[in-house]
This record gives sequence, structure tokens and C-alpha cells, in this order.
Amino acid sequence: MNLAVFASGNGSNLQAIINSCRKGKIAADLKLVFSDRPAAYALTRARRAKVPSIVSLVPRDFPSREAYDQACVELLQREQIDLVVLAGYMRILSPLFIDAFRGRIMNIHPSLLPAFKGGHAIEDALAYGVRVTGVTVHFVDEQIDHGPIIAQAPVRILAQDTRETLAARIHRAEHRLYPQAVEMFVSGRLKICGRTVIPS
Amino acid sequence: MNLAVFASGNGSNLQAIINSCRKGKIAADLKLVFSDRPAAYALTRARRAKVPSIVSLVPRDFPSREAYDQACVELLQREQIDLVVLAGYMRILSPLFIDAFRGRIMNIHPSLLPAFKGGHAIEDALAYGVRVTGVTVHFVDEQIDHGPIIAQAPVRILAQDTRETLAARIHRAEHRLYPQAVEMFVSGRLKICGRTVIPS
Repeated sequence: MNLAVFASGNGSNLQAIINSCRKGKIAADLKLVFSDRPAAYALTRARRAKVPSIVSLVPRDFPSREAYDQACVELLQREQIDLVVLAGYMRILSPLFIDAFRGRIMNIHPSLLPAFKGGHAIEDALAYGVRVTGVTVHFVDEQIDHGPIIAQAPVRILAQDTRETLAARIHRAEHRLYPQAVEMFVSGRLKICGRTVIPS
Repeated sequence: MNLAVFASGNGSNLQAIINSCRKGKIAADLKLVFSDRPAAYALTRARRAKVPSIVSLVPRDFPSREAYDQACVELLQREQIDLVVLAGYMRILSPLFIDAFRGRIMNIHPSLLPAFKGGHAIEDALAYGVRVTGVTVHFVDEQIDHGPIIAQAPVRILAQDTRETLAARIHRAEHRLYPQAVEMFVSGRLKICGRTVIPS
């Protein structure tokens, strides 16, 4: 199986996947790392890991979101990608993209969905005053932070937590959970049934 | 400190609190058990535990929800109750009741709030396909399943879970968490700050 990772920033989840592939914990080839930002540190990580294809496309060079996503889909098809792993990819995918890779695009979110959807999940959880939050890996569908859930891990909020200390623990949980979820897909252990994913 | 437990049904959370009081894990007196249903098994548990006051008031004997809740408040004041513990109490409290005991009424809910509010939390979590749900103890405010969160515990959903097996695990988590939350209140370790409860 061939994997692509899409990232816009630091790429720490990309690094976790690179490490798991290297150790043989994920039995697949990381064939492509893609970014919408040429300066993303994720691309540096990809170069260091000697990922075969490293591509950056700048959105403003395309006439529309659909044209941009069409270029992505063509790239993915050309590279014969089986699974697209979003890892801090900051663009919302168009239906065209989602439809072309339905059930084959994963994302990770720093809360226990459906709680705290959106771009400020960690801050929102702290403001709400929950005692347990966590991370969610899910398949991507047309709604934001909504698709079938593959895996979740709880993270306790401590009385002395700040945004920074909580975010650090959540990121560590992401780096454990995301490679596991990818491995489950790669080994054929995920079956989507309606909006439920049945692991085996 | 004097505790009152309100229950409409089986009263398994009441039993957990009775047990914790008996073992000295909660340093307070369970002075009153109240029900809106004279046949509630919770009342039998209260009699067996020799709770001093056991009261059942039937809603249809009162002209309005406010009149019913006013009778409850007077009862609580007469018994000098410090904390009201809702344990499967199926009535929504009126603002009159909530205001009279603000910050002194606890409830328990079978999900990690704010996810899966309402009366079908366990079924809703299964239907959504989450991998982690849990239980929440919170102070009661005017909105349903909304007040400041005191304690939460995660419960994993397993691939083979049915409604029954999951409910059984959630109830066991409730029976552990609720007495702990009551004890934190009784020992003065909960400070409400906006909608956050700061444990110490």
C-alpha cells in the first residue's frame, strides 16, 4: 500500500508516521508528502526521511479550490496512493477530492469528537471546563470533523493545566494514536458500516 | 454536612453513596432520600440503609411544577441539607429549586459532556460510532446537562459492545465516580469559578 501525508505546518504527526514506517509498525510505503505551503517544516522532515515524492502546490496559482483539488487528485492517482493521511493540513477538501478518495482519507482532531469541533478544540475544551478531552482519528466526509470515527484516546485535563501543557499531552496522544489507525487501515482491519467503523 | 439523594428508579447510584458513607469514604450524613415515585426501588434501599428521612411526593398532588419544587425546597431546608445529589431523578428542576440550592445540586450523566446530552446518551454514543464515551458529574444549572463539570471518567467502547454491555460498564464507572465527587464537595475541595470547577 502507498501512503500520502498532507501537512501545512510543523508535521509532527508526519514524523510519527515516518517513524512507524521505518520501524515496520506500518507495513506500507510513504510515497508522497504534500503541502499547500512551500515553507512548511513538514517538507523538511519528508526530505530528511527521503520520501520519494515531495510536492508543494500554492493555492493562489490555481483559479479555484476545485482546480487545486483536481490537481491533488491527479497527483494522488499518478502516485497510486491508497490512503491520504491529513496531518495538520489546513485546507478544507472539496467534495471532488473527498468523492475521489471516499473512505481513504483520514484526519486527526484534538478532541473526543463530536465534542469541540472546529479550529480551537483545545481552547474550547479548557473554556468549557471538561475534565477529560482527547484525540480522534476519523475518515473525512463532506462535513467538518464529522466522518466515521476510527480511533479515539482520552486525555485527562489536570487542575494545573495551561493551554500549553494540555496541548503537549494531546499531541503526544496523537503521535501514538495516528500511526495505530493508519496501520489498522493498511492491514485491512477497518470496515466502514454507515457511520461506524468496525475494527477487527 | 447533610446529604439528600433524589432518585426516581432503581437507585444504584444511591446505593454507591450509601456504601461510601458507611465505609467512611464520604464524611457526611445521608439524611434524606427523596423520590417522585412512591414505588421506586431507591426508597427500599433507603429503608434498608436506615436513612433518617425517606420522603416521596407525587407530582399530580401539586398544582404546578413550581409548587412541587417549593415543597422540595422547604423539605430540604427543614432537614438542613447542604448538598442535593440527583441519582436517576427523572424530573427537570425548576429555576426556583436551582436558585435555592445553586452550586449545591449535583447530577450524573452517562456521557462525556458536552457530547451526547439528553435522555439517550448511551444509544446516541453507539449510533454516532465513538470509540470513547464516559460519565460526567456536574453541578446543575438552568440548562439541561450543562452546569459546571466536577468530574469525568472515560469509558472505552469495544467492537463487540451492545447497548447492554456498554451500559453495564458505564454504570460501574458512575458508581466509582459519583461518591468521589460527593466526597470532594463534602471535604470542601471544589471551588466553582465561572463554569469551571477547580478541584484542590
